Amino acid sequence: MANEENKRSGLLIVFSGPAGSGKGTVLGRLFEMRSDCVNSVSATTRAPRPGEVNGVNYHFISEETFNNWISQDLFIEWDHHFKAYYGTPRQFVEENLNNGKNVILEIDDNGGLEVMKKMPDCVSIFLSPPSWEVLEARLRGRGTETDEQIASRMLKAKTEIKHMKDYQYIVVNNTVDEAAANISAIIDAELSKTARVFKDKVVNFDNL
Amino acid sequence: MANEENKRSGLLIVFSGPAGSGKGTVLGRLFEMRSDCVNSVSATTRAPRPGEVNGVNYHFISEETFNNWISQDLFIEWDHHFKAYYGTPRQFVEENLNNGKNVILEIDDNGGLEVMKKMPDCVSIFLSPPSWEVLEARLRGRGTETDEQIASRMLKAKTEIKHMKDYQYIVVNNTVDEAAANISAIIDAELSKTARVFKDKVVNFDNL
Repeated sequence: MANEENKRSGLLIVFSGPAGSGKGTVLGRLFEMRSDCVNSVSATTRAPRPGEVNGVNYHFISEETFNNWISQDLFIEWDHHFKAYYGTPRQFVEENLNNGKNVILEIDDNGGLEVMKKMPDCVSIFLSPPSWEVLEARLRGRGTETDEQIASRMLKAKTEIKHMKDYQYIVVNNTVDEAAANISAIIDAELSKTARVFKDKVVNFDNL
Repeated sequence: MANEENKRSGLLIVFSGPAGSGKGTVLGRLFEMRSDCVNSVSATTRAPRPGEVNGVNYHFISEETFNNWISQDLFIEWDHHFKAYYGTPRQFVEENLNNGKNVILEIDDNGGLEVMKKMPDCVSIFLSPPSWEVLEARLRGRGTETDEQIASRMLKAKTEIKHMKDYQYIVVNNTVDEAAANISAIIDAELSKTARVFKDKVVNFDNL
């Protein structure tokens, strides 16, 4: 009686946090932990940076292609910033959700808020540094930026952190393992929410 | 700047499920896994059964005492069924929540719904058997009950399962380890909810 028609759909997870919060590292650990999670790769018109791989870091496409994709409604969301276009291709996301994969959108603030509006069923998680001091220390620790660049990133982080309250969950990145385990717990909990359990027919009692 | 005033309050967790769903066993495993969870011990006017220990299984008290506790508002909820009174003493719950412990109320359906109404911040979890067949097999497996008693328990379970949708989470008890891990994940996720993170000052950025 139970599970016969069980075809679980995946979660769409919006994952944001300021530069230096450690989003990439934490997601890397999460993907090691859970094979039921996949990363959505954004499309962009900006040029690849050294070491970036097409289809892995981004789908690098021309402005013409980007424009065509917009016309064909192939993006869940798209935006223009830092003189380039960025967008989330719809097909990958929808196919994976239908196959029961949890799709993670690592996305900046504006994009995150747009996805939340368009896909209200999504789960939104903000990765927070433990404090300003730790964030600044991490940015300095990269050793690649000038004082001025660090000050500029801290200012941007302050703007991003103001939107923290728009997210459903806040995960504090004290350690990578803890933060990844915390996200994994959020996924398990969300999959146990009553509405989802019924929708996915995880339990299927005749008389309900 | 962060964590200075961090004093996390615990979660109040209403935990229900039909007889035979394995609530006691799953909770036993959960308490082994997490020292931040405690079991709320109910008070009752019924006589202890063989092996039951006062203060562990129940606080066994007289009707007079029970009545006094009601007058003094010492119960979060109380009810009368099977010819005896049952209630959840308030003080233990509140002290433990204030000390950051997650307090689990293993409670029958009516009590659970009453706590949800009175304490809307609580987290409610329903432990479901995977199917009717498994539930019936588990009840038969106890080997202590007649066919008639099992039929009566199954009928009661059907009533209880109708209330499943009133709970926030449904955990399917396929195995004890899985179910306990699932509850543990729900606890971690609930502690990461944005409102709670701010209330508990887990993050504490000045400009928010």
